[in-house]
Amino acid sequence: MKYLCEIRYVGTDFAGFQFQPGKRTVQGEMTRAAETVFGGKCAVTGCSRTDSGVHASCFFLTVATPQGNLPVPPEKLPFALNGHLDGDVVVCAARAVEDGFHPRYDAQGKEYRYLMRNAPVDDPFLRHRAWQIRRPFLPDGLDRMRRAASLIPGKKDFSAFMAAGSSVCDTVREVFLCEVTQAEALYTVRIAADGFLYNMVRIIVGTLADVAFGAREPEEIPVIIASGNRKNAGRTAPAEGLYLTKVLYRNNTK
Amino acid sequence: MKYLCEIRYVGTDFAGFQFQPGKRTVQGEMTRAAETVFGGKCAVTGCSRTDSGVHASCFFLTVATPQGNLPVPPEKLPFALNGHLDGDVVVCAARAVEDGFHPRYDAQGKEYRYLMRNAPVDDPFLRHRAWQIRRPFLPDGLDRMRRAASLIPGKKDFSAFMAAGSSVCDTVREVFLCEVTQAEALYTVRIAADGFLYNMVRIIVGTLADVAFGAREPEEIPVIIASGNRKNAGRTAPAEGLYLTKVLYRNNTK
Repeated sequence: MKYLCEIRYVGTDFAGFQFQPGKRTVQGEMTRAAETVFGGKCAVTGCSRTDSGVHASCFFLTVATPQGNLPVPPEKLPFALNGHLDGDVVVCAARAVEDGFHPRYDAQGKEYRYLMRNAPVDDPFLRHRAWQIRRPFLPDGLDRMRRAASLIPGKKDFSAFMAAGSSVCDTVREVFLCEVTQAEALYTVRIAADGFLYNMVRIIVGTLADVAFGAREPEEIPVIIASGNRKNAGRTAPAEGLYLTKVLYRNNTK
Repeated sequence: MKYLCEIRYVGTDFAGFQFQPGKRTVQGEMTRAAETVFGGKCAVTGCSRTDSGVHASCFFLTVATPQGNLPVPPEKLPFALNGHLDGDVVVCAARAVEDGFHPRYDAQGKEYRYLMRNAPVDDPFLRHRAWQIRRPFLPDGLDRMRRAASLIPGKKDFSAFMAAGSSVCDTVREVFLCEVTQAEALYTVRIAADGFLYNMVRIIVGTLADVAFGAREPEEIPVIIASGNRKNAGRTAPAEGLYLTKVLYRNNTK
């Protein structure tokens, strides 16, 4: 048995999730904390490789102990690990899973949210936590983004929304949901899929912003997708507005 | 004429509002930005002296230029100043006021909000932005705090809620409103008054937390106030949960 932990982190001061020598990463910090608690080498495996600056309000990782079992009761593990973490990553919950469980490959789907703030002056409370866009959207920017977003869901080849240079063979993903909401200056894009290509959410959001500015029409979305060409989509929106918010597992694990 | 600026700031990386040699303060940063824009000595005067770590979603200050007039149109000043600020303090708006206007002495009242998060595990997104309280409140903690809060408003001598060692002569203040709301683990105390004694909001919140824990009864509030003795009130809640949220001026200025 090993532990499955639900964690949350503010991505600002991390060089992403994945371990990199000499850099502060979420995997690095979690491994250090686990090895302190269990007194030996631990294998920490995450559900996703978030980029530098990307946040997670819900992220799962497994911790395999050097003992090969669960020396600490799962319900006590969050407190034990949090005592060795800095406060920008927190373990919310933990439970036991079988050794064969993989938090990435066993995920049935994920949900991300992306925050854009459109106002002439930035909000200091959202610094590093939203894409602050000073240039105004069109007055019907929300409606335009909604129409564009409604054309995204479905099982499609999303290679037009994949970072150039990415080497994935199967670029077909099923997007379950893509919606845009607004609360004053803050626009939230919520997108759920069975999986995401590299930078897919950030490229979709960059394309939606172009639609809100009037640089593209909502009806171009199917054309961009059909082209399969990254160059036809919009810019990659910055990492700081992106949040992993949900990971879906089968009933028996989550 | 001089400028009246509305600013917002995240207090975490400031040693408070007021200028202190060798320390990063809001007044220091605003003065530096103004002196860069106007090319000479500027007088920056704030509406309050917030402590180190305290935030402001609404704060007013005046800027008197070396020219003695308004070389930049007020509506353009936010952009000019923000270009020389770091992003954790932002100028939202500016307009012209007479030289005699004082943002502190001419304020008719202020409103603060205080955020407490009561949960066994901290939220990394509220690190430095709320008082994270792991010890659980009583199940009726909200109701208890509401009853206690309802006994605070009125024109009273609030010296029991003033930091010891403070040397103010008139300790009578009129509290217009004191209310507590809850959204999941987050408790917000909102308090408005014609003025506040030193640490008054933080001592009131510390006392309310004691009421939520069951260490004090709501009915003790009038007894504490009547005693006029700081020792009878609760601890001083930490600075990081405190936000200045509103400053009230007469109609002709705001």
